[in-house]
Amino acid sequence: MAEKGVKVFGMWASPMVIRVEWALRLKGVEYEYVDEDLANKSADLLRYNPVTKKVPVLVHDGKPIAESTIIVEYIDEAWKGGHPIMPADPYERAQARFWARYAEDKCNAALYPIFTATGEEQRKVAQEAQQCLKTLETALEGKKFFGGDAVGYLDIVVGWFAHWLPVVEEVCGVSIVTVEELPLMKAWFDRILAVDVLKAALPDRDRLVAANKARREQLHSA
Amino acid sequence: MAEKGVKVFGMWASPMVIRVEWALRLKGVEYEYVDEDLANKSADLLRYNPVTKKVPVLVHDGKPIAESTIIVEYIDEAWKGGHPIMPADPYERAQARFWARYAEDKCNAALYPIFTATGEEQRKVAQEAQQCLKTLETALEGKKFFGGDAVGYLDIVVGWFAHWLPVVEEVCGVSIVTVEELPLMKAWFDRILAVDVLKAALPDRDRLVAANKARREQLHSA
Repeated sequence: MAEKGVKVFGMWASPMVIRVEWALRLKGVEYEYVDEDLANKSADLLRYNPVTKKVPVLVHDGKPIAESTIIVEYIDEAWKGGHPIMPADPYERAQARFWARYAEDKCNAALYPIFTATGEEQRKVAQEAQQCLKTLETALEGKKFFGGDAVGYLDIVVGWFAHWLPVVEEVCGVSIVTVEELPLMKAWFDRILAVDVLKAALPDRDRLVAANKARREQLHSA
Repeated sequence: MAEKGVKVFGMWASPMVIRVEWALRLKGVEYEYVDEDLANKSADLLRYNPVTKKVPVLVHDGKPIAESTIIVEYIDEAWKGGHPIMPADPYERAQARFWARYAEDKCNAALYPIFTATGEEQRKVAQEAQQCLKTLETALEGKKFFGGDAVGYLDIVVGWFAHWLPVVEEVCGVSIVTVEELPLMKAWFDRILAVDVLKAALPDRDRLVAANKARREQLHSA
C-alpha cells in the first residue's frame, strides 16, 4: 500500500486512457505505464478497480483512482504547479464540466453506432454524430482551444477526437468532421495535433487503423 | 444579463432538482424557485439551457449552469464559506466523484426499469438495482454519512434515494432497500431524513406517491 510513484493502467488503443497520459505529461509528471489485455485483465487492475474493472486507473503512491475525467481533475488538484488544467474561475469550471459531460453522454453515444452500422443506417447515425459535434463546437467559438489560449480540461477530454475520428472515418468509410460542416473543430484538430507533448503520447496511426478494421470485421461477422 | 441573485429552475417531483436545493440550503444561500411544466417548458428555461433543455438549471447573477452534479460542485466553489460540500483532500474528492458517477450511471440505470417492469421481470430488475446499491453501500462502511461525520457531496447526489425509493417501492410493490439486504443504507436513509435543512426541502410524500402512481399507470397503458 505504501508503494511510491505514479502508475497508469491502460490499453494502448483506448481514447479514454490518452486523457490521463496527456494530463500527466502536461504537468510533467513521470509515470509508469502498464498495458492491459482487456480480455485477460491483470490481478492488479481488478484489485485497483474492483467496481467497474475498466481502464484507465491511476495509482498514486499506492492509492487507485478510476474514471478518466475524474482522474484528470485529480491530477490537476494533486499537482497544482505546472500547466493549469481546470479553469481558475468557478463558472468557467462548471462550463468546462458541462461540455465534458455532454461529450461523454451525447457525443460518445452518437459516435459508437457508426462503428456497427452500415449503408443508409450508417449515413443516418453519422449525421446524428455530426449534429452532436456541431453543438459541442459552439464552445470553441472565438477560441484557439476549448481552454482558451492553452489546452485545458475540455481539450483533454475531447482531444482524442482529433486522432481517433479520422481513423473511424477511414475504417468505416464515412465523413464526419469536414471543413464544410465543422470548420472550427477541424481547425482545432490541427492545433491539438501540433502540440508536441500531446502528439508524443498518441498511438501509432497505422496500428490503430489495423486494430479498428479488425474490430469492425469481428462485429460484422458476429 | 446583469440580473442579480440566485434562481433555480426545477420541477417539484424531480430528485435531480433536490440536489441543487439541498446544496443551496446547506450553504444558507437564499434563492428563488421556479417550477417548470416539463410538457410546456418556459422560454427562460430554453434560453438558459438550450443544449439539454433539462431541469435543474441554476442562474447565478444572470449566468446559467445546468446538470445537477455540476451545479452542486459550483455551489461549493462559489460560496466557499458555510457548510463544506466537497471533501478537502484531492483523493477523497476523486473518490466522492467516482461514487457519484457510479450512482448516476449504474444505479439510476438499474432503478428506472423497476418502474416499467412487471411480474418476474420486475423481480429481476429489482434484484439488479439492489446489487448496484450494495456496491454503493460499501462507500458507507464505518461512516455516519458518505461525507463522514457530516453530509457531503455524495450524500447530496444520492440522498434522494431516502425519500424517493420508498415511494417507488410502494407504487411498484417491490422491496429494494431492506434492513436485511442493505442495513447500512437503510440506517443512512433515517439519518439523511433527520437532517432538518434537507427534510424541509422535500416534496410532500402523498403528492409524490400520487404523481408516481399516475405516471406508472400511464406507462402501462401506453
